[in-house]
Amino acid sequence: MDSSALYKLSYGLHLISSVSEGKDNGCIINTLTQVTSSPARLTAAVNKDNFTAELIARSGQFAATVLTEATEMDLIARFGFQSGREVDKFNGISFARDLRGIPYVEETMAAVFSCKVIDRLDVGSHLLFLGEIEEAKVLDNQPPMTYAYYHTVKKGTTPKNAPSYQEAPAQRGFRCTVCGHIEPVDTLLQDFICPVCKQPRDVFVKL
Amino acid sequence: MDSSALYKLSYGLHLISSVSEGKDNGCIINTLTQVTSSPARLTAAVNKDNFTAELIARSGQFAATVLTEATEMDLIARFGFQSGREVDKFNGISFARDLRGIPYVEETMAAVFSCKVIDRLDVGSHLLFLGEIEEAKVLDNQPPMTYAYYHTVKKGTTPKNAPSYQEAPAQRGFRCTVCGHIEPVDTLLQDFICPVCKQPRDVFVKL
Repeated sequence: MDSSALYKLSYGLHLISSVSEGKDNGCIINTLTQVTSSPARLTAAVNKDNFTAELIARSGQFAATVLTEATEMDLIARFGFQSGREVDKFNGISFARDLRGIPYVEETMAAVFSCKVIDRLDVGSHLLFLGEIEEAKVLDNQPPMTYAYYHTVKKGTTPKNAPSYQEAPAQRGFRCTVCGHIEPVDTLLQDFICPVCKQPRDVFVKL
Repeated sequence: MDSSALYKLSYGLHLISSVSEGKDNGCIINTLTQVTSSPARLTAAVNKDNFTAELIARSGQFAATVLTEATEMDLIARFGFQSGREVDKFNGISFARDLRGIPYVEETMAAVFSCKVIDRLDVGSHLLFLGEIEEAKVLDNQPPMTYAYYHTVKKGTTPKNAPSYQEAPAQRGFRCTVCGHIEPVDTLLQDFICPVCKQPRDVFVKL
């Protein structure tokens, strides 16, 4: 099987969030897909290890926003490269709550959907949630960020728990143990920080 | 609910096909999504009314190819705007068969995946198939066609059985009863044919 065939698939990028018993969390996914139009339903695959999957499973609800090309890498790193079991990802940023009280980021997001989970499928490492849309709003008219744009223009890496993650071929340089970013140099400067997730030099390992 | 929020979601375009008891068929979908990487699995939502959904459900297998920007509208109309219950869509075009004998189009396609169905979810008007990839090949290095490219550059319409279909606002002109294309003119010439699905003038109705 040639895994690079999978790179030919196109996706957007989304922030999926939930709240359960007063605990907020969210993560970045590329798998939000409209699967029916009447009624309008979405599916979203979320890694079982993610705290967000646990909150969605417990509460039966999620909100999802669509990233635009204007969304900062800082926001993607905040929600995509750390765990909600260790930090409150919504702490210190501006956000709103939907009709169910689920937190979502408004700034630089193209749209928001509020969903009630009506079914789910165990697909292996991930849970696929089927959500019926209860509320949908357009937030911003900048172009939605595609996964291709994230990889080629934003130079973003694919986190290990993404369904589209592929082990990279052997490379020289240093790899960030937090987000997986590879810096292709022979030595890292003392004050180097990861361009993707802003972690310091000491989280890097030599390849 | 503002349905136009759904237009902010990004997709690719794909030709999903199957064979059951000697009967070949395929249709165009925008819902092919990688949901796990190890093992590599895809989901695909197909309208229950589509003959392709019936063949996949019966045989437990499908192949899916990824369209590129070079894929002709003729091919999209052939697979997207007619029913395999009435015509043999693979008749008269060049195609290959995968390891399971499933027909797929090679020309202008970015990649092909051969999948065994390991589970499915009834999502309403559509069936969501979970396929485990048995074979994957890159076919062409032209840019994959996104749904946005299809709408804006190719000027393609969304067929009625797509999960992302939205009833268009009232418009003047003539609507093709086969593919839904709207020709915004006051009169149709005698030899007019639909620019999308190539049907003659008499399948059009005045709006």
